[in-house]
Amino acid sequence: MINKLTAKIQKTNAPIVVGLDPMLNYIPKHIQEKAFEEYGETLEGAAEAIWQFNKEIVDKTYDLIPAVKPQIAMYEQFGIPGLMAYKKTVDYCKSKDLVVIGDIKRGDIGSTSAAYAVGHLGKVQVGENKIAAFDEDFATVNPYLGSDGVKPFIDVCKEEKKGIFVLVKTSNPSSGEFQDRLIDGRPLYELVGEKVAQWGEDCMGDSYSYVGAVVGATYPEMGKVLRKIMPKAYILVPGYGAQGGQGKDLVHFFNEDGLGAIVNSSRGIIAAYKQEKYGKFGEENFGDASRAAVEDMIADIDGALKAAK
Amino acid sequence: MINKLTAKIQKTNAPIVVGLDPMLNYIPKHIQEKAFEEYGETLEGAAEAIWQFNKEIVDKTYDLIPAVKPQIAMYEQFGIPGLMAYKKTVDYCKSKDLVVIGDIKRGDIGSTSAAYAVGHLGKVQVGENKIAAFDEDFATVNPYLGSDGVKPFIDVCKEEKKGIFVLVKTSNPSSGEFQDRLIDGRPLYELVGEKVAQWGEDCMGDSYSYVGAVVGATYPEMGKVLRKIMPKAYILVPGYGAQGGQGKDLVHFFNEDGLGAIVNSSRGIIAAYKQEKYGKFGEENFGDASRAAVEDMIADIDGALKAAK
Repeated sequence: MINKLTAKIQKTNAPIVVGLDPMLNYIPKHIQEKAFEEYGETLEGAAEAIWQFNKEIVDKTYDLIPAVKPQIAMYEQFGIPGLMAYKKTVDYCKSKDLVVIGDIKRGDIGSTSAAYAVGHLGKVQVGENKIAAFDEDFATVNPYLGSDGVKPFIDVCKEEKKGIFVLVKTSNPSSGEFQDRLIDGRPLYELVGEKVAQWGEDCMGDSYSYVGAVVGATYPEMGKVLRKIMPKAYILVPGYGAQGGQGKDLVHFFNEDGLGAIVNSSRGIIAAYKQEKYGKFGEENFGDASRAAVEDMIADIDGALKAAK
Repeated sequence: MINKLTAKIQKTNAPIVVGLDPMLNYIPKHIQEKAFEEYGETLEGAAEAIWQFNKEIVDKTYDLIPAVKPQIAMYEQFGIPGLMAYKKTVDYCKSKDLVVIGDIKRGDIGSTSAAYAVGHLGKVQVGENKIAAFDEDFATVNPYLGSDGVKPFIDVCKEEKKGIFVLVKTSNPSSGEFQDRLIDGRPLYELVGEKVAQWGEDCMGDSYSYVGAVVGATYPEMGKVLRKIMPKAYILVPGYGAQGGQGKDLVHFFNEDGLGAIVNSSRGIIAAYKQEKYGKFGEENFGDASRAAVEDMIADIDGALKAAK
């Protein structure tokens, strides 16, 4: 799957991923109203609104992008109906040949981590059958519990040729509280980065490992260091756009081959129609606004990468 | 909810929680067969087997115990049907007046953590309605992302009078990889423990805080130190029984008031019928075996606490 991701990034010339993190207040009124008319102001109604919103954005952008990253929390908050909309979104994106990165940030120990890995990336055994439950292509994983928590995911990745992105340095303001603390003179995130490189060594695709990392766009200097520590890890970079990261901050996350990083934007794309810049499209045409925002993001990153050469 | 948990622990004299972490291979054949007959060897069939298994164990133990801790990964691996069995289990346990600790180990940033918090402990806004999706009483939370990840949970806890247990020192062998690393001469888990104490200060129940901690039974010496660092935090202690922890290891997790800790056992209780010790009950009567294992666990911990006085 890392090979597919790399190939799709090269084909689209777009090292970007659209974060499908639908908050209800991002969703245009006409979609909400229609969903509520049919299902009421219920969890089912919210789930239907999310699904219709996602579908339009995917339909309007899928040919430009290699991947999407649905944030499961945004669905899980609507309970079972919300998770059904998540699954529907995953399936629909895969039907459009998009690579799906499930932003699930799971992580536990032993058989419990194995259960998450099986449920999201693998197949669970039920009697004689092996059944894929959520079936994303990649998942994000929290490393706090150490190798016991991550290895079960890697085992499933090897079997299914799928991948993970391990949280190394997150994009949020307080990520430094623990991640930046010095251990033998070096920040914790570097140690986690080293582990990511180690974990990834024995599950390599053609050029990159099945084991990638999450490093926030908001910390470009740390990205530079981590790029060197994990040369074969694809870096998933959140924090572009709404969180403050810009194209020029991103160049250090890439390798010299122009690969090695994939930049996420969520709100900046899916709620583009709310920005003054894309206001001309109007709320009804929110999908076109998202498409324009994707085109601008691709140009911004492409420009920054070319300027850095 | 922390007051309810404390009161129930005092009433039952059982500072224990039964981990409802049903692996299919724990579930007696007759239950699996019946479920598969009705739903086939499908996710629905697995979910039905899990639900029937849980129900019997709850029916046979609820009067002895204050709380249960379903591990959501074990349900999530069976996709949407699995999560429906999770929700059914949560609701059923609440109907039996058990405190439900959702072992979800979620954690993200800002609005995403807020979505998890709302979905599991709070109520989500849909139009004019506020709706509880999963509605557990407590949830476990991963601290790797710092205060940004934890505070949204605390906000919901204050509103709903619910609680969280933050992962501090986990019970698994490799938990030390990051958690034990020294920062200014002190292990990371101590710093996380200090944060737990801080976070908990402004959301106190009568004697204990809404913000608790997870510390593995397998590390009693660390438990002793952490007990002092977080005097007002309830400690959820996994790792008893199957993972190697014993009653005598647990005394340091408690305060002098005999409170402050709640010990989890999963496999040791729910799969008790598979142990030689409880073999006399037979597979058909697995619920009675679980009841006997609960009684033994209560006696073991009670004996250890009395011996330590």
